[in-house]
Amino acid sequence: MKLASFSTHLGPSFGIVRDEMVFDLGKRLGGRYADLRALIAANALGEAAAAAEGTRGDHPLSEVTLLPVIPNPEQIFCVGLNYADHVKETNRETTEHPVIFMRVPASQVGHDQPMLRPPESQKFDYEGEIAVIIGRGGRRIAEADAWDHIAGYACYNDGSVRDWQLHTGQWGPGKNFYRTGAFGPWMVTSDEIEPNALMTLVTRLNGHEVQRATTAMLIHGIAKQIAYLSTFTPLAPGDVIVTGTPGGVGAKRTPPLFMKGGDVVEVEVDRIGVLSNPIADEA
Amino acid sequence: MKLASFSTHLGPSFGIVRDEMVFDLGKRLGGRYADLRALIAANALGEAAAAAEGTRGDHPLSEVTLLPVIPNPEQIFCVGLNYADHVKETNRETTEHPVIFMRVPASQVGHDQPMLRPPESQKFDYEGEIAVIIGRGGRRIAEADAWDHIAGYACYNDGSVRDWQLHTGQWGPGKNFYRTGAFGPWMVTSDEIEPNALMTLVTRLNGHEVQRATTAMLIHGIAKQIAYLSTFTPLAPGDVIVTGTPGGVGAKRTPPLFMKGGDVVEVEVDRIGVLSNPIADEA
Repeated sequence: MKLASFSTHLGPSFGIVRDEMVFDLGKRLGGRYADLRALIAANALGEAAAAAEGTRGDHPLSEVTLLPVIPNPEQIFCVGLNYADHVKETNRETTEHPVIFMRVPASQVGHDQPMLRPPESQKFDYEGEIAVIIGRGGRRIAEADAWDHIAGYACYNDGSVRDWQLHTGQWGPGKNFYRTGAFGPWMVTSDEIEPNALMTLVTRLNGHEVQRATTAMLIHGIAKQIAYLSTFTPLAPGDVIVTGTPGGVGAKRTPPLFMKGGDVVEVEVDRIGVLSNPIADEA
Repeated sequence: MKLASFSTHLGPSFGIVRDEMVFDLGKRLGGRYADLRALIAANALGEAAAAAEGTRGDHPLSEVTLLPVIPNPEQIFCVGLNYADHVKETNRETTEHPVIFMRVPASQVGHDQPMLRPPESQKFDYEGEIAVIIGRGGRRIAEADAWDHIAGYACYNDGSVRDWQLHTGQWGPGKNFYRTGAFGPWMVTSDEIEPNALMTLVTRLNGHEVQRATTAMLIHGIAKQIAYLSTFTPLAPGDVIVTGTPGGVGAKRTPPLFMKGGDVVEVEVDRIGVLSNPIADEA
């Protein structure tokens, strides 16, 4: 099942995406769940599926505005330096523990919405990634149990303002410019993607492939990430883990390849779909 | 005016603290504002003051459980290495831009609530700081205008699990263990603390002074912090900026001085009050 958050002229809602149609769960479930995060927290995905079964969709997919899959996560953790070729291109070393930094919700947009290059920088870079959405929360989750805590998977573009990322040793400012990251187009629920599934991740800028990897290449795998993060903080339903980007980022190319207004960037994960975003120069 | 978030057997609420009594604004304002963040966002501090005027308090302060001043901020930004003596003791260098990292709400407790030393570490350290609570939100706020965006000030203990902080170059894990930071006891509204006020910050562990500084010693002052942060992200009402800790942290002492179950740590800011927390070893 594909689940998305979206808005129409009626306001924000969430629903199931199937056959290019959106089944509006905000409406169909009578407002019982405020948003997709609440649906996940209530473990009501079966109820959601039943509400759409044997019916026609409510909105053509092309007529809604997709929002970040979870517009309001309590926590968004990103894993850095988690593919060997990216570690190498940044002249860093592999770490025993995952490299963790955070994003705020305001730094995200949904599918097809412009990612904004701020006027403060010419160094706006892409980072294609796979995002994990937490289903059942928990603390100190064992790696073996981690898969039971995943609600689903989505594509993510961890858009990075490189000069601001490197203002100091802490990367947060360059990772949190307003509407610089993208999260979508939807999540595919984990009943359709088996634990430790092999997924292929590809990033394209203006149609040219710039990154390619598979989940087999992750240094710290998804189960380990969940175990590590949940050691220090309780993971909550709707929390997002952005699992790392492979080599090929624009900043490490010769010459560098940065994004600018008018570009189009895509992140494709074979088991999920394509997250596509135009780049706009922020006014 | 002192504003606090608290809970009683009736559930969570927020109110004014005066003369050792709490004036329950959740009740007095008829539920119009869900919490202190909502009150601030509605710019309703005058309404709050009027609701308490000329009346008796609702609860003795000693009978409520104080919560983090803002229990649910959208964003909590912390500034690292922002006093020269702390920069020196960590063998680092002063940076042109503020060092920014983030905390999650689950990492915080209120006044008098135990700060938890997790079983994963013996290196649980204090960091006394002054917290700024954002009132009016904004983006790209000029330094000269920054003071108009502050709702108030509170004490903060940026409790740090040092070994986890240094697992990699990114400090997040050691700064975000569950209930390791403290934020309270209340906020003093900015009408009582003039722009660029000289405040004195003192940290005590078991009654012994371990840190002392004044706001005159901040490397990147409060207005600059607001200007810098709001360049990349819109600051929202109730957002928290934790402005940095002075020298004297436990990890850099000889021998090191870490906190353990049974200790009591206090952060006092002369214009605000005393934030006191026992340390408990997490079961």
